[in-house]
Amino acid sequence: MELFAVADLPEIRPGDDLAALIRDRVDLDEDDVVCVASTVVSKAEGRLADLSAFPAGPRAREIAARLESISGDEKDPRFAQAVLEESTEIIMEAPFLLTESRFGHVSVNAGIDRSNVAGADLLLLPKRPSESAARIREELPADRVIVTDTCGRPFRHGQRGVAIGWAGMPASRDWRGESDRDGRELGVTVQNVVDELAAAANLVAGEGDGGTPVVVVRGFEFGDHAGSDAHFREVEGDFVRQALREWEFESN
Amino acid sequence: MELFAVADLPEIRPGDDLAALIRDRVDLDEDDVVCVASTVVSKAEGRLADLSAFPAGPRAREIAARLESISGDEKDPRFAQAVLEESTEIIMEAPFLLTESRFGHVSVNAGIDRSNVAGADLLLLPKRPSESAARIREELPADRVIVTDTCGRPFRHGQRGVAIGWAGMPASRDWRGESDRDGRELGVTVQNVVDELAAAANLVAGEGDGGTPVVVVRGFEFGDHAGSDAHFREVEGDFVRQALREWEFESN
Repeated sequence: MELFAVADLPEIRPGDDLAALIRDRVDLDEDDVVCVASTVVSKAEGRLADLSAFPAGPRAREIAARLESISGDEKDPRFAQAVLEESTEIIMEAPFLLTESRFGHVSVNAGIDRSNVAGADLLLLPKRPSESAARIREELPADRVIVTDTCGRPFRHGQRGVAIGWAGMPASRDWRGESDRDGRELGVTVQNVVDELAAAANLVAGEGDGGTPVVVVRGFEFGDHAGSDAHFREVEGDFVRQALREWEFESN
Repeated sequence: MELFAVADLPEIRPGDDLAALIRDRVDLDEDDVVCVASTVVSKAEGRLADLSAFPAGPRAREIAARLESISGDEKDPRFAQAVLEESTEIIMEAPFLLTESRFGHVSVNAGIDRSNVAGADLLLLPKRPSESAARIREELPADRVIVTDTCGRPFRHGQRGVAIGWAGMPASRDWRGESDRDGRELGVTVQNVVDELAAAANLVAGEGDGGTPVVVVRGFEFGDHAGSDAHFREVEGDFVRQALREWEFESN
């Protein structure tokens, strides 16, 4: 398996044809997995916004005031409003805003990016990243497309790449019912390969000045396994989420 | 960047010289990252155990009885005892046992494997995986070694590869203070590259019959960034962990 970044992509602007820009720069195989950073998908889809588009309601003002009192840093209630509008559930309000986005992704601040954007205050995540992936895939010779993001996680330091949308492949390999060398049933039952592909892509994508937002994975074999498109957990089986809903942060 | 599995490794037994077995099967470059599944590290280190080695105390019996009443499946209290002995903290007892292992890794059942082991009931995680990585690295021409595991996580379905030990490289790239194309400070601040490398390796490692527990990553460039060895979160900044400590599962 081989990974390489697509070189010399221009700065992406609203309306740009991402697939065409990729196609022009790389000879893709049918089996390639094309991993596209959500930042450029969002830019192409015009998901830029200014804070002035999010006049803060009472809940946003309350959240911002609380976060400000915890951190000591100024917090713009319009930013909290933008997060609320991008989310279907606020899982945790403090010490940071953890929400479920409209497409099911649990992340801090609904994944809204304040760093990667020129000419606007905010870059929102794509509205429906799997639909974005499907649209890009339509226009590429490659059969598999993943829209990636980076995010942190409990228990472990640092961020890592994750898939927020995918097309042309199942999200996971399902090993249930398969056995190991000695005929025992496997301990690992479902392997989330789109997340692993996104993590792998992030190793060669990088960030910042030298950032290359599109990475091709060549030679990844899904293999002869059942597939599953379960990706974001439902609330029901997600005990961490249930615990966080009930938890109340107390600052010292 | 290229990844390939090391072919034809034999079934690993206690006392086997893993580094020698790897060296004999692949020409390694100095810059390679050798990702070794914890299962084979544990086997080589003799971390096999039988349930009879863990006579259950009152807490283990209580935990097993509770898990049995929730799931309806029989639970061996000696397994709960093994998990307790491998752990420094029980974060959550039900509906499954989530603990911090003696080396800082938060996982279900202290990462104890009941599937991947012949001739014993249990395979425990390596005692100190970063020391294992350092020992293997000593005997390899490659400069970087990661001990990998797979585990689930909140919010997202399925398991993915993670690093539980590493040697010869920092755990993370630290982007703090670096800027994007427009001179804005980056949103992603710390990228946990050893976890991403473990996830990438898991894509070619597979499980079960065709499982290849050692994967070489060639051509990964850490780049000119600060490094950090922070990997497992401390309790203090881990709000999910704090929430789980206080949470009480209630079965319907």
